[in-house]
Amino acid sequence: MTVSAFEHPWLSALFGDEEVAALFTADRTAACFLRFELALTRALGDHGVVERAAAEAVLDKLSGFDPDMTAIADGIAKDGVPGPSYVRQMKAVVGETLGAAVHVGATSQDLSDTALVQALGAANDILISRLRHLVSVLEELEGRFGTRPLMGRTRMQAAKPITVGHRLSTWRAPLVRHLQRLEEINRNLLILQFGGAVGTGGGLGDKHPAIARQMAAELGLAYAPDCWHTTRDTMADYANWLSLVTGSLGKMGQDLCLMVQQGVDEVTLGGGGGSSAMPHKRNPVKAEALVTLARFNAVQIGGMHQALVHEQERSGAAWSLEWLTLPQMVVATAASLTLGTALLNDVERLGDP
Amino acid sequence: MTVSAFEHPWLSALFGDEEVAALFTADRTAACFLRFELALTRALGDHGVVERAAAEAVLDKLSGFDPDMTAIADGIAKDGVPGPSYVRQMKAVVGETLGAAVHVGATSQDLSDTALVQALGAANDILISRLRHLVSVLEELEGRFGTRPLMGRTRMQAAKPITVGHRLSTWRAPLVRHLQRLEEINRNLLILQFGGAVGTGGGLGDKHPAIARQMAAELGLAYAPDCWHTTRDTMADYANWLSLVTGSLGKMGQDLCLMVQQGVDEVTLGGGGGSSAMPHKRNPVKAEALVTLARFNAVQIGGMHQALVHEQERSGAAWSLEWLTLPQMVVATAASLTLGTALLNDVERLGDP
Amino acid sequence: MTVSAFEHPWLSALFGDEEVAALFTADRTAACFLRFELALTRALGDHGVVERAAAEAVLDKLSGFDPDMTAIADGIAKDGVPGPSYVRQMKAVVGETLGAAVHVGATSQDLSDTALVQALGAANDILISRLRHLVSVLEELEGRFGTRPLMGRTRMQAAKPITVGHRLSTWRAPLVRHLQRLEEINRNLLILQFGGAVGTGGGLGDKHPAIARQMAAELGLAYAPDCWHTTRDTMADYANWLSLVTGSLGKMGQDLCLMVQQGVDEVTLGGGGGSSAMPHKRNPVKAEALVTLARFNAVQIGGMHQALVHEQERSGAAWSLEWLTLPQMVVATAASLTLGTALLNDVERLGDP
Amino acid sequence: MTVSAFEHPWLSALFGDEEVAALFTADRTAACFLRFELALTRALGDHGVVERAAAEAVLDKLSGFDPDMTAIADGIAKDGVPGPSYVRQMKAVVGETLGAAVHVGATSQDLSDTALVQALGAANDILISRLRHLVSVLEELEGRFGTRPLMGRTRMQAAKPITVGHRLSTWRAPLVRHLQRLEEINRNLLILQFGGAVGTGGGLGDKHPAIARQMAAELGLAYAPDCWHTTRDTMADYANWLSLVTGSLGKMGQDLCLMVQQGVDEVTLGGGGGSSAMPHKRNPVKAEALVTLARFNAVQIGGMHQALVHEQERSGAAWSLEWLTLPQMVVATAASLTLGTALLNDVERLGDP
Repeated sequence: MTVSAFEHPWLSALFGDEEVAALFTADRTAACFLRFELALTRALGDHGVVERAAAEAVLDKLSGFDPDMTAIADGIAKDGVPGPSYVRQMKAVVGETLGAAVHVGATSQDLSDTALVQALGAANDILISRLRHLVSVLEELEGRFGTRPLMGRTRMQAAKPITVGHRLSTWRAPLVRHLQRLEEINRNLLILQFGGAVGTGGGLGDKHPAIARQMAAELGLAYAPDCWHTTRDTMADYANWLSLVTGSLGKMGQDLCLMVQQGVDEVTLGGGGGSSAMPHKRNPVKAEALVTLARFNAVQIGGMHQALVHEQERSGAAWSLEWLTLPQMVVATAASLTLGTALLNDVERLGDP
Repeated sequence: MTVSAFEHPWLSALFGDEEVAALFTADRTAACFLRFELALTRALGDHGVVERAAAEAVLDKLSGFDPDMTAIADGIAKDGVPGPSYVRQMKAVVGETLGAAVHVGATSQDLSDTALVQALGAANDILISRLRHLVSVLEELEGRFGTRPLMGRTRMQAAKPITVGHRLSTWRAPLVRHLQRLEEINRNLLILQFGGAVGTGGGLGDKHPAIARQMAAELGLAYAPDCWHTTRDTMADYANWLSLVTGSLGKMGQDLCLMVQQGVDEVTLGGGGGSSAMPHKRNPVKAEALVTLARFNAVQIGGMHQALVHEQERSGAAWSLEWLTLPQMVVATAASLTLGTALLNDVERLGDP
Repeated sequence: MTVSAFEHPWLSALFGDEEVAALFTADRTAACFLRFELALTRALGDHGVVERAAAEAVLDKLSGFDPDMTAIADGIAKDGVPGPSYVRQMKAVVGETLGAAVHVGATSQDLSDTALVQALGAANDILISRLRHLVSVLEELEGRFGTRPLMGRTRMQAAKPITVGHRLSTWRAPLVRHLQRLEEINRNLLILQFGGAVGTGGGLGDKHPAIARQMAAELGLAYAPDCWHTTRDTMADYANWLSLVTGSLGKMGQDLCLMVQQGVDEVTLGGGGGSSAMPHKRNPVKAEALVTLARFNAVQIGGMHQALVHEQERSGAAWSLEWLTLPQMVVATAASLTLGTALLNDVERLGDP
Repeated sequence: MTVSAFEHPWLSALFGDEEVAALFTADRTAACFLRFELALTRALGDHGVVERAAAEAVLDKLSGFDPDMTAIADGIAKDGVPGPSYVRQMKAVVGETLGAAVHVGATSQDLSDTALVQALGAANDILISRLRHLVSVLEELEGRFGTRPLMGRTRMQAAKPITVGHRLSTWRAPLVRHLQRLEEINRNLLILQFGGAVGTGGGLGDKHPAIARQMAAELGLAYAPDCWHTTRDTMADYANWLSLVTGSLGKMGQDLCLMVQQGVDEVTLGGGGGSSAMPHKRNPVKAEALVTLARFNAVQIGGMHQALVHEQERSGAAWSLEWLTLPQMVVATAASLTLGTALLNDVERLGDP
């Protein structure tokens, strides 16, 4: 038991994912904040909003800026976002005069949302790679066992014979679609957030597009004319994708749980888990975990959709609901892909006994 | 109070949608069943699976086939699906000999799923048309009020001035994306279901693709080599789209609820609703209903994702969960679009008082 | 496919419940409205708020009052609630002078909420009776098969032998708890709603408690000093109970789905459903439906909890969300209990093969 | 951004709760495991299942037992539960001979579930104390501001005047009910889990009740004859309670968000949060966070209800879903109570401006 199974010293061994979780640490987020602010100041200097010398002085002073994390935590308890404390600290470092060349046209949400999509972009690279690998493992199983007979089962009853290959194709086909979907989703998702206090460009006027484009390029993100402070459909759509992935793997997990039953015996799994009372047992732990993660994300997706009702120019309530929900969904998906591959690698035999 | 607000004699006046609900009636579904069976028999004849004369005799006998709906209901209580009773009745009409030329290679799920996507295709045409109209109404409001000042509000507090146009753009931008998304989704969604008993093509062998292609063309659907009996990601992805639409309209509704408050007075709405105790009041009933429908669909989406864990070659449990969920989501979305447009048409003034 | 499976001409044969659905019809709700208004007018006369003669004249004129349902539907489209139109019609019947003796101190929400708890009270009587019967059927199965051996299964694997009786006890124990819980819940749930326009008693001052007590007694409800217009915890708590019931039956259904598998063969079920492609099959349709209804209610419970965020003195948005959710949950629970009993009655043998 | 906002170095300052989170650490869980095993061995000795001398030798050897946490994590990746690795380590410490006097009649789920309810019991003590304090703060506000006028608002519109006291009573009344409900819930919740491998008492026969009673007494838990391995209604019912609490506080938070709006000005809040772009703002951060936590728990409750479909004698999939869900709900509730009190302490003025 723990607050979050994804970070629990024990449970994370099954449900967690160190590589993807590392993208959501406070340190990493702070590093993204700095990249954002540096890109902004550079662009402000390049486009004459602040003097180039001031911009360079700021960049120089902020190089290696290491914020006081406790102060940020204290700030969040009061402000609800890390931005205000972070910016205060940054301004203290550059000094009063240069402070006017920092964070110009930006707001806390720009920092947090841009850091988020940078994390999601990096996560998606990992997820894509794992999805592709999982597809290839399924293809390999198809090569090994695809032509073997398997009893087709409908409504929990033996129906008519199929092949192992048919069953495998129902596991693989959605994954291929998910790879295609993510390409579409990334296009709308991995976009710089830079709207300023109320989403109108922060007073930068007609210089805003050029500044934003330059920042986006530097940060490896796309540019879109409208900020997305309050139009969170891209986030909910992405969360849906995550849950589609875990849902498809949940189907595979549930199938394998059923196949490994005594009396059914359609698969031999190595690597099964033991029991403290029955050391002889080989439990399909990974297959069950796929079902767990599928149902978990299928619950969380509701929170991301509730957060679409995001009032006015910024809703602290709706926005924070994403924070409590989305990172867990990403890690659940990452873990599910790793477990799915590991589970398939445990397969020693597929098909009717 | 009623079992379903969408069909309640009173409540459906606010939350229902006659035009879209009509696509999901039992009569309409039965008509889709007949179109499926006729297309199948024709294709069976054209591709030599049954003799052409037999096929034509079947088509002749089934012309105007009007199944006994009570018998189908009785069948569902026992079989869990309408198909078995429907097919029994159909075979009784064509007689024993010709019975062998009916429903060949098909299963109940093929009937139900194909009828569903035909309904969804028709519903999507309506939804697209309403979405486009809503976008145009927003553009018209932009023309009338877009340059007026409005206090930008973040975290429920006055922040900095924006224009009405900025607020309107946050309502419109997601709708434009939803129109683009539906094009993608329709490509994966509006596909003939024809997999036979266990999803392998029902014993039609290498004639299956050609038969399926012909049926798909006749029914106005796309063809895909694999059946989607158990790969329900396309359904969950579509449900997500529905909830994205209602979520975006829920944000608009919530904004208008807040704008119409006394003391805020950023909008004048005609058509507001009254109270039995306070006849002087003008309640933003449609705006509140948009929030209700957004939160309703945001809940239902979870059911469609739970249904992704669809075991083996057919899960009665997971599949039926879709039936209890998806049609309501479609109607909720249709109603939301109509209410959204009607609400905007009630707008007499937008902007700071 | 249909908008609501609970009212669909076919699907309701499996998922619907005529007896309980009848409690939520518009006609029945209108009859509850009339009972409320009659009780109110009587109490107003008895406590001297209106002259006794006026009260009696109103009671006389309203005897057999039959509202125009279409006008109520039209009213809901505008007002969001049936009350205003209903009251307008009622006042038209009694005439202008007596109109002042009607609906005094009340508001639309008082009508709708009181009608709702009257329906829920009647529904709960049915649910209690079905739960008790189901418990007795389980006890009877215990008597017939309880001592037979059954392989205990954990994590989908054969573990150690148990008896049929042990498995049955895990189905029965929660149902007994649910019966106890409903007693507690009914105490907070079945309470007259009578708060007036803003929940403060509608201007009846210190006569309000006596009037409300008399109305509650006449309507067979409890009285509580505070109205519950905006404190919806009793509704969410009741919805939780409904989903606990379906969840417990879902466990039983899932167990029976697994027990009836070929190769496991721990139960023989009569009454199984057929397939249009495989007439030989005996599908565990009712057992699967129990799982469906469990997962359906487990989704809906989230909507009832979202509706707890019920702002100020009345939230049209949050309140309506209950309307779209709760009646379906009640019917799902009612259907689940009937299916559960029918499923157990289908059991011909329990225990290891 | 982080995996879990409840444990994030920044976000936990707003959404986390150190005191309650400490109840769910791996160290604390391991300590509960040891208490369970010691109580079990003592009872086994007292009731003659193992020799008293062997029991005392085990107790002696296990005193201060400090398991290798990394080995437990490794074990979970394989076994899905901490028990097997923990028990292996424990047996290694006591040695081969005495190993037969350890964990007799128990299984991993007994360890995990009993540790969980011990954590929940301690958490509930804290929650009760916070709830009582919050009620007293509301009563104090009633004393200070209760008689002041406030505009009653229904459907987001000014309706009729109420008093501050009426609004406060709608915040307080559900909390009083929640205190009563928790007493009932604790009775079913805080129960020793001791069912053995398949829930039948682990082969201890007629000595099981006495052994279990003694263990329960030592661990400060109640005893019930049936184990609750698979009857998780008590967990879902408790989760419902948590979400009722956060839902009620979410209503209070939403009300205060609306009251603090400029133009409404029904409350003056000290301690409001700032913005990086608009340092002058006083954002109602805590009030918004109450809404966030309400909606978060309203989503999570669905996961606990999905987990009711807990198949056979143990479902790894359903059980683990609780682990991913419940601890977060407890911490969300704890944080909500603290934030609610802090928010009310920020109130400097209540009532019409």
